[in-house]
Amino acid sequence: MPSLLIKSVDVITLNDAGDVLRGVDIAIEGGSIVAVGEAPPGFLAGEVLDGTDLIALPGFWNAHTHAAMTFERSFGDDLPLDRWFNEKIWVAERALTADDVAWGAYLAAAEMIRSGTVGFADHYFHMDRVAQVVEESGLKALLAWCVFGLSSEVETDLAGAVDFARRFQGAAGGRIKTCLGPHAPYTCPPEFLKTVGETARKEGMGVHIHLSESEEQVEVSRKRHGKTPPAHLDAVGLLDVPGQKLAAHCIAVTQEDIAILAARGVSVAQCPGCHMKLGMGVTPVPSLLAHGVNVALGTDGAASNNNLDMLEEAQLAGLLQKAHLRDAEALPGDTVLRLASRNGARALGFEASGVIAPGAAADVILFDSRRPHLRPRHSLVGNIVYSARSSDIRHSIIAGRLVMKDHELLTLDEERILWEAERRAFAMLRRARGTPLREYHG
Amino acid sequence: MPSLLIKSVDVITLNDAGDVLRGVDIAIEGGSIVAVGEAPPGFLAGEVLDGTDLIALPGFWNAHTHAAMTFERSFGDDLPLDRWFNEKIWVAERALTADDVAWGAYLAAAEMIRSGTVGFADHYFHMDRVAQVVEESGLKALLAWCVFGLSSEVETDLAGAVDFARRFQGAAGGRIKTCLGPHAPYTCPPEFLKTVGETARKEGMGVHIHLSESEEQVEVSRKRHGKTPPAHLDAVGLLDVPGQKLAAHCIAVTQEDIAILAARGVSVAQCPGCHMKLGMGVTPVPSLLAHGVNVALGTDGAASNNNLDMLEEAQLAGLLQKAHLRDAEALPGDTVLRLASRNGARALGFEASGVIAPGAAADVILFDSRRPHLRPRHSLVGNIVYSARSSDIRHSIIAGRLVMKDHELLTLDEERILWEAERRAFAMLRRARGTPLREYHG
Repeated sequence: MPSLLIKSVDVITLNDAGDVLRGVDIAIEGGSIVAVGEAPPGFLAGEVLDGTDLIALPGFWNAHTHAAMTFERSFGDDLPLDRWFNEKIWVAERALTADDVAWGAYLAAAEMIRSGTVGFADHYFHMDRVAQVVEESGLKALLAWCVFGLSSEVETDLAGAVDFARRFQGAAGGRIKTCLGPHAPYTCPPEFLKTVGETARKEGMGVHIHLSESEEQVEVSRKRHGKTPPAHLDAVGLLDVPGQKLAAHCIAVTQEDIAILAARGVSVAQCPGCHMKLGMGVTPVPSLLAHGVNVALGTDGAASNNNLDMLEEAQLAGLLQKAHLRDAEALPGDTVLRLASRNGARALGFEASGVIAPGAAADVILFDSRRPHLRPRHSLVGNIVYSARSSDIRHSIIAGRLVMKDHELLTLDEERILWEAERRAFAMLRRARGTPLREYHG
Repeated sequence: MPSLLIKSVDVITLNDAGDVLRGVDIAIEGGSIVAVGEAPPGFLAGEVLDGTDLIALPGFWNAHTHAAMTFERSFGDDLPLDRWFNEKIWVAERALTADDVAWGAYLAAAEMIRSGTVGFADHYFHMDRVAQVVEESGLKALLAWCVFGLSSEVETDLAGAVDFARRFQGAAGGRIKTCLGPHAPYTCPPEFLKTVGETARKEGMGVHIHLSESEEQVEVSRKRHGKTPPAHLDAVGLLDVPGQKLAAHCIAVTQEDIAILAARGVSVAQCPGCHMKLGMGVTPVPSLLAHGVNVALGTDGAASNNNLDMLEEAQLAGLLQKAHLRDAEALPGDTVLRLASRNGARALGFEASGVIAPGAAADVILFDSRRPHLRPRHSLVGNIVYSARSSDIRHSIIAGRLVMKDHELLTLDEERILWEAERRAFAMLRRARGTPLREYHG
């Protein structure tokens, strides 16, 4: 692992005290931060970055996405959820190949690194190909092979998903973690969810699932199972598993649901951009936080967002709550940065990340404040949350390794990715026709 | 005026038919677009831009801002409107000098050009200094010297504002227009508003005013005047003036208010970023549009936004309505781009701008699609509205003149601006103390 010294940089630490430091050094070695302030005596840096006018932050964690869906970016805009699924996404996915997943994930990786993401929770198909992209790109990830458990399902079965999870747990020098990915309580039969829970307990695995995306889903769940979706998952034993428990969306949740999520240690990934764009409603983030639930942020796939920009997601998370609650004090800037970084790292099982402090994982991004919209610097947190764009990120360091320097990607062949991904996305959508793979009914 | 040829570019025209063109040429001469498709025979270009992989759009119009408030960026985050005014902004403005306004406006101009704004409606103090910045930067603007009409007022009186408006109307080769800027119905006495209306009619001037920012303001208006703020303004004759009639915010408006705004030809500048951040509520944009009101977008000042990024504002305008109305089909992508460009140009009295077509004003911005988040290109409109960042803008042309080329500002000394503006902003806030200039009561 290379050693690295960042000289004289301003730092939003996101430590418990909320410290913002000015003009300090950050010393990095062996994938970890070894000092913040002054480098330890005798520290030998393999590389030195000048931090003048830069602002260091813990990198972002995208707690819910489908990386390869970059192929369907702006393929179904301005449509409600049911039509988006039935007319667009689940038709397009008929034509999806393993190579498409790989190139879609490469495109996503390039975009994620450029916009400050250091790790992501991916939930999709052909996940061995995504793992390869994680390995090459230098990113960290929690990967789950999505399963539906229906007899008509072609993507993979539970055994295939478990096999993937076993093979890649701890891969890429620990940068890859895995879990199981049952799609959702409204698509997976209860018996299947029960089997997933039993399997997860046997294998020591966590789960990543979609949960309570709409009032309609809650109603369907009450009719079918006599319970809300979280209560149903709890009853079939899916929330009582080891490892990460990660639930995406959680828009239509009751006070009882929140109590279940808190009691079971389930992390919630809110996806404000997607929720706004599809008119889905508002995850009660302040209430979840008040009840001790670990709330993180995700972009969801690029097909519904339409980018993978976690800074934008953090900004939207704050603005959406302030607008929805008519309360300018809701989710202040420091809090939304924590949702996007520290809480995300925790949700994915990378607890050492999400803070700039000695001993923490060296997942660090550096914003360049030499931009008119980032002056004057009255409040570094305010400037980042309410004014910065992710394109202001100049360098990115993951596990102590520079993966972007001076806006240039060091681990990926970006030009080839842009060309191959677009060409293959066009070809995939030309092939896509016929009935949807399954039907969404709200 | 220089001539300019953009070769082989994709174009979001925003014409009535919503045409999106691929790989065409745009010929520009004398401040106007002379051809879209092929250059006219014998067209001699002084400069040629390679449009490969670029997307041309009409530039953005910021229909409500206070440019010099860049000095107070992130000076009062996460505070409700009353505390933001009384504890922060109206105390800070005690220390404001004409030089501060000039440097604040320079900083704003650099930021606006970088983020694709070609014209802005400014409403502040020491506006002769802002006019100078407009002249130098190459931007277009509608400028109003804010007046309160209170005896305690020190900034300027109506005569001063009229004098400014007369002197600068049509300045900078027609790039500057002026109007009167009474602050708001809740701050200006009725007699004063009446005088402003009479003066505007006599002088042939328009008005730019804050209107109906909250339910509380409406209640106060009903108590004081027996009327909603728009009905009150109409009764005192302020909406019956020649020239631009521009009302910022219009959050708490009734159906009758909307009818008044439509009948009087008042343009509304919604500021979604500011409204969300301060938890102020939601301007009923779809309803205003359905009743024939010209709705444009503004950032408001950087003290409440906190940037001057009109692409972000357009994105928020769409997402906010979809979220608020729980309707993914509300304000589709093409519509929000029109709010940010064509409707803004119209609101400011620059009707020839806001579209890419022969004969239109040559106010054109060029996005670079060689970015992972802008591939694949299934929908250019979708990619710009839902995924692009304003930092993707590579070139900007205003009145036929390149003001930014390859991300470099050609009319402003950016390095000096960053340094001077920050230094002076720090000094201004160090000087600011004492009671607020006036008091906000909701």
